Amino acid sequence: MIKYSYFDNAATTRVSKQALEDYTETINNFPYNPSSVYKGGMESYKAIQEAREKLGGMLSTSPANLFFTSSGSESNNLYISSLLNKRSKGKILISAIEHPSALFPAQRLREFGYEVITLNLDSNGQICLKGFENALDRSVKAVIVMHVNNEVGTIQPVKEIGQIIRDFEKNNLCSIHFHVDAVQSFCKIDFQPEKWNIDSASFSSHKLYAPRGVGLFYCKKSIQPIYLGGGQERGYRPGTENTAGIVAFANEAERQNRLLEQNFLHTMELKNLLISSLSGEGIFTFFNKKIHETTQSPYIASLNVKPIPAEVLTRVMDSAGFAISSGSACSANSPQKIKYVLEACKLSKEEAFSTVRISFCPDNTQDEVVALAEALKNEVKILKQIR
Amino acid sequence: MIKYSYFDNAATTRVSKQALEDYTETINNFPYNPSSVYKGGMESYKAIQEAREKLGGMLSTSPANLFFTSSGSESNNLYISSLLNKRSKGKILISAIEHPSALFPAQRLREFGYEVITLNLDSNGQICLKGFENALDRSVKAVIVMHVNNEVGTIQPVKEIGQIIRDFEKNNLCSIHFHVDAVQSFCKIDFQPEKWNIDSASFSSHKLYAPRGVGLFYCKKSIQPIYLGGGQERGYRPGTENTAGIVAFANEAERQNRLLEQNFLHTMELKNLLISSLSGEGIFTFFNKKIHETTQSPYIASLNVKPIPAEVLTRVMDSAGFAISSGSACSANSPQKIKYVLEACKLSKEEAFSTVRISFCPDNTQDEVVALAEALKNEVKILKQIR
Repeated sequence: MIKYSYFDNAATTRVSKQALEDYTETINNFPYNPSSVYKGGMESYKAIQEAREKLGGMLSTSPANLFFTSSGSESNNLYISSLLNKRSKGKILISAIEHPSALFPAQRLREFGYEVITLNLDSNGQICLKGFENALDRSVKAVIVMHVNNEVGTIQPVKEIGQIIRDFEKNNLCSIHFHVDAVQSFCKIDFQPEKWNIDSASFSSHKLYAPRGVGLFYCKKSIQPIYLGGGQERGYRPGTENTAGIVAFANEAERQNRLLEQNFLHTMELKNLLISSLSGEGIFTFFNKKIHETTQSPYIASLNVKPIPAEVLTRVMDSAGFAISSGSACSANSPQKIKYVLEACKLSKEEAFSTVRISFCPDNTQDEVVALAEALKNEVKILKQIR
Repeated sequence: MIKYSYFDNAATTRVSKQALEDYTETINNFPYNPSSVYKGGMESYKAIQEAREKLGGMLSTSPANLFFTSSGSESNNLYISSLLNKRSKGKILISAIEHPSALFPAQRLREFGYEVITLNLDSNGQICLKGFENALDRSVKAVIVMHVNNEVGTIQPVKEIGQIIRDFEKNNLCSIHFHVDAVQSFCKIDFQPEKWNIDSASFSSHKLYAPRGVGLFYCKKSIQPIYLGGGQERGYRPGTENTAGIVAFANEAERQNRLLEQNFLHTMELKNLLISSLSGEGIFTFFNKKIHETTQSPYIASLNVKPIPAEVLTRVMDSAGFAISSGSACSANSPQKIKYVLEACKLSKEEAFSTVRISFCPDNTQDEVVALAEALKNEVKILKQIR
């Protein structure tokens, strides 16, 4: 294994020792199909239900509103594709910086008769509430806004948006579904789906030290999924339940959630240290410097190093022993190396091209960040000489 | 953990020691996001590619035709929901005994303008090839037939169906997609998707001693998936790849595939032993006694114990230390306890109600089967006295 000072935690986190232990223990203790009627099957089902209850407690919602999926991407698609089953189409309002697993399926809805309207952002990367309110009308069927963005770490005012939607519904006798991608905020920043009038939300296991292959879908309103099968997860998600992954996820989430405030402060210190360590150097420009629990996550720093291409910097930092990202891992698969998030945040194409993402986890140390800053300065100095 | 003589292997198999070792080793060796551009990410990607090559070798197809998903159910849904993206709708021919993850999404296509025609079976549970040929016309867009049925173990003549489809296409200048659910046959019975003119197929990891949360989708024709996202799996399946699950699956499949013939003979002996052990008792009727590699899988036995309800027998066998099934685990979630497979195989409602499934794995021993037969006889004797 190549070892890094690892600063790509928004792409994926390492699985914690405890989560891996939970996983293997559950594989051994609950090997049966949770849908089987014999006792061993029912015990496996109970293990899943306990995991659901834990997560319900963390999210202050009934476990009945929670459904296990295979990933955050699946949770987004599960809700968005359910709109295909609606007889009366209408408008979808979606922020310009959604994750590809929300934005692309939503855009595809156009081919099925929906009008899909992109909500633009101000230069801080935030949705303007006034503009949002003006965009609402009675033909709006769904609003899709992510909580914490995976590339720049901006936090959207989802609580306020939820309130605006409910007020609009009341005044206009209509029904609007509010979906929030909370993959980058869960157990990191306070998120209250029920209290904040959110109708569905997506979560992922592997962004918080638990194994891949597990996601969570919160849903308060009844939807009609497109993917059907054996009726698992009360019909919302077919396929034999991944008992071990689910248990490992719920347990790790509980551990992380208990540390939420402590981890927030720690990552804030790390990000502030990085910002101050690079502040003397003109070439380094951070997208949002001011961390705040309602506007900017400390877990993600978006750093512009114009004119150095992000991919080049990522590769030289790689050989220097640091894992950082030249964009979201998801966009790396795209032939165009999609930079729509940065452009929606009012960065020029050139700026977007030379922006790297540095994403923290509570395990990162101040020493690592100091070393990261030094390495960034050194590598950039060398690269500038080449140009 | 409750320990059983375990005869519910068609619902799920236990994870082998080696598969679990492969999983944890891969978690530790390849912890990075396979889409990341730094070396650690690229190594993770390479591990996935190697897994894909292994599976390609086993299926005699190019790895480029293989896509990792989260389950067999997802693979079925992935293909079937892609039909929503087709502009010109038409007919879908589907066998009456498909898994719920194929049958239900296909039936739902009716609401989107497709005509969905069910292919009926003869009393052996087989599709009549002549009838199938007659059902074909130029408006048929897709044919969906599973290889080995998960409840009764019948093998459908998918090779012959593939040939009939290609001949029809040639003579009628049309294009028909042939999808096969191979979840219960992979590494158990010879399956040659490419040679047999199959256009897409579904596979699952947890039916062969590898972890849950991993499936495989073989696809030779280009399709337009409904679920979209970060472009992983060449756009066919969004979500960060489950590297550890994928590697564990491919390695275990390779081990099992090497033992295919040996395991076939062993499970055939087990099933034959069960049949002969119960043959003197009038109450026990097996659905298909004659095992053959092209008509009936040795891995699954469907046993009628009329008038005893399957669920009652399953529960008493549970307390006697034997895990058997009162139907497919998938149908257990349904409020109606769906028995459509058995009814399509010409069993009466009463017979379907009193049919249990006993499914073997290579680890089962002859001693276990003898004990199972004894227990079945004893429990049935007691239950008959009650009635």
